[in-house]
Amino acid sequence: MSDLLRPPSASALVTEAGSLLEGLRAAPPLTHCITNAVVTGFTANVLLALGAAPAMVDIEGEAGMFAGIASGMLVNLGTPTPEQRAASLQAVEGATASGTPWVLDPVAIGALPVRTGLAHRLAERRPTAVRGNASEILALAGLSAGGRGVDATDSTEAAADAAVSLARRLGSVVAVSGPVDLITDGARVVRLGNGHELLTRVTGGGCALGAVMAAFLGTARASDTDALTAVVAASLVYTIAAERAAAMASGPGSFAVALLDELAAIQPGDLAGAARAEEESL
Amino acid sequence: MSDLLRPPSASALVTEAGSLLEGLRAAPPLTHCITNAVVTGFTANVLLALGAAPAMVDIEGEAGMFAGIASGMLVNLGTPTPEQRAASLQAVEGATASGTPWVLDPVAIGALPVRTGLAHRLAERRPTAVRGNASEILALAGLSAGGRGVDATDSTEAAADAAVSLARRLGSVVAVSGPVDLITDGARVVRLGNGHELLTRVTGGGCALGAVMAAFLGTARASDTDALTAVVAASLVYTIAAERAAAMASGPGSFAVALLDELAAIQPGDLAGAARAEEESL
Amino acid sequence: MSDLLRPPSASALVTEAGSLLEGLRAAPPLTHCITNAVVTGFTANVLLALGAAPAMVDIEGEAGMFAGIASGMLVNLGTPTPEQRAASLQAVEGATASGTPWVLDPVAIGALPVRTGLAHRLAERRPTAVRGNASEILALAGLSAGGRGVDATDSTEAAADAAVSLARRLGSVVAVSGPVDLITDGARVVRLGNGHELLTRVTGGGCALGAVMAAFLGTARASDTDALTAVVAASLVYTIAAERAAAMASGPGSFAVALLDELAAIQPGDLAGAARAEEESL
Repeated sequence: MSDLLRPPSASALVTEAGSLLEGLRAAPPLTHCITNAVVTGFTANVLLALGAAPAMVDIEGEAGMFAGIASGMLVNLGTPTPEQRAASLQAVEGATASGTPWVLDPVAIGALPVRTGLAHRLAERRPTAVRGNASEILALAGLSAGGRGVDATDSTEAAADAAVSLARRLGSVVAVSGPVDLITDGARVVRLGNGHELLTRVTGGGCALGAVMAAFLGTARASDTDALTAVVAASLVYTIAAERAAAMASGPGSFAVALLDELAAIQPGDLAGAARAEEESL
Repeated sequence: MSDLLRPPSASALVTEAGSLLEGLRAAPPLTHCITNAVVTGFTANVLLALGAAPAMVDIEGEAGMFAGIASGMLVNLGTPTPEQRAASLQAVEGATASGTPWVLDPVAIGALPVRTGLAHRLAERRPTAVRGNASEILALAGLSAGGRGVDATDSTEAAADAAVSLARRLGSVVAVSGPVDLITDGARVVRLGNGHELLTRVTGGGCALGAVMAAFLGTARASDTDALTAVVAASLVYTIAAERAAAMASGPGSFAVALLDELAAIQPGDLAGAARAEEESL
Repeated sequence: MSDLLRPPSASALVTEAGSLLEGLRAAPPLTHCITNAVVTGFTANVLLALGAAPAMVDIEGEAGMFAGIASGMLVNLGTPTPEQRAASLQAVEGATASGTPWVLDPVAIGALPVRTGLAHRLAERRPTAVRGNASEILALAGLSAGGRGVDATDSTEAAADAAVSLARRLGSVVAVSGPVDLITDGARVVRLGNGHELLTRVTGGGCALGAVMAAFLGTARASDTDALTAVVAASLVYTIAAERAAAMASGPGSFAVALLDELAAIQPGDLAGAARAEEESL
């Protein structure tokens, strides 16, 4: 990580992250996920471990209504069947009508036409947050044809300008995942140096973070906290838990198990000493 | 748990549970599951660990025939796509024609219209057993609008009368999961105090129990054991294994792993000392 | 295992397996999987642990194009929804046009009509490799009505002749999984005695091997190695990792976790001492 990412360059954000974690545990946000078939079980387990209440409602005729009663919502485009595509559109309608914050994760867009078209259509509905790797964010900003499947082929910093302009255009928080995570609302840029390479060796390592963002956005809404802070909080809690898990793991299998244990164990007071965050105003 | 739940108030049931577990291991019941996308892998792993033979056949044109050759069958409504809805109806036809015992798990019914309609339609086909949390059982009995997603918002005892009358109306065994599990066939009520809170922190912790019930019902049918005993046996084995797993776990991730290990390790002789069960005749 | 399966009766193959493992780690093959809903997460985790790059692209309008850019491809028929059936046909078109090697896993064919018809149709497109248990291979060869669900009811040796004739007819490598794995291209037969019974107690224990074969076929294509060697390499690496995992496991839950850790840890130099392989020319 960069020399700049030493504590406590963004200490107010870290303190607020702790408060949001406390709030999430006190009143578990009902977190509505429309996500891909590969990671749906792991995503639910991540939310349950953290203390949120997951609900994977991804069929037509139910997703729209449910988004209206959920605290936060995720649309992840990893395996967008026709049923999920229709359900996603209904869910975004429901979330918009009720003011439910929602996250768009445009998995592997660019080269793959079905999800790419859907991602652009959903982005126009102004998600509260967008989460992706550098290639996905560049593709959503219209600046790249996307990566090779789910792997980023572009670096986080290469996507920084695209993230800022996308955030301004959509009115969304944009989070670019990578060795250093970059999160921006178009006015501020936060860089986080926490995390571990093993997160890339577990399927859903990134996708589950999108669901955690939806949960934190639900909690933030209830306490009038801004979306940038919620997305930073989600990322900090998740990536610091990942560091703690990696310290106990002997490989990707035991890491995934330990990550769930650590997401359940992590406390607000654990964040300040571990966070590597810097904040920049544009 | 209640003071009443001390051994050996239902010792005959506990002895029969041990015999069924032995029978299940000696002749693995082919357990046909139509279940939700979130828990399908975990459910199959629970059945394999226990010693049953899972088969997740959930497409039209195959589910009906397969229910006819299976030992036991589960219909879980967690993510009821159109394909699964059609397959469920075919499977129930096949099970009914062949006398295959089957379990209905009406996940999150009440507020969500698609699955609620389907659950009522399936219930009319007289499942051998119904498993749900208190909110789901109240909703199926027509006495509540259901919970908030998959979480029970009603207590088990609040659903006791509804469970008994539903059991009588459908001719089914009705099992209400909660801190104390309540299982009734309309003539007897069994309460089980085993289990652990960590089961609620793992996705599929409840759904997989429905599949275990289907497996035990398959074994019970082969030995002319009644359905109430089979459902009690499934619950006892599962929740006692969960207690043993929790004793070794450091969080929800390691608990889920240990649960599979303990389901494979548990022996008939382990039940009597651990069971907390009481039986009441109505 | 048979007395014949002592090292180093197939030592050249074992050496080549080590080279392929090294090549796979140096240039992770993009491994396109259309697989069943039960095992999709575990399959992706197996590939990630090993060092390959999984992508589960199973929808119409994307699968064909993606098969064209993938290094290797898997079609597993475990839960063949209409969407997956259409995507499979497109994917095989794409793979054929681009020369992408692909694996067919005809899960539970025989008794179940939808997947059986599809398996025969896909087999005519000449998969690079076919993987199944003895009952599935006999059914694909037209010599049996298949097993009872996903369990083999026939022994590996009972399927040996069918495997050889199927390999000759399709021009495919045919792999029959069992206590001893049999792999043939119609001219040579390789028998592998590695593996562990716990692989049959984890859902996807066999299905994930099909994906590992697709990954190794992708690596083999890049180095002009023949398909039989690639399939043997995949089987050796996977089953030896399973033996190492079993040595540390206390049951099926901890075994699955350890398998992922061992797939990440295993090195080319670990194969020679552990491999139990024999090779026969027909």
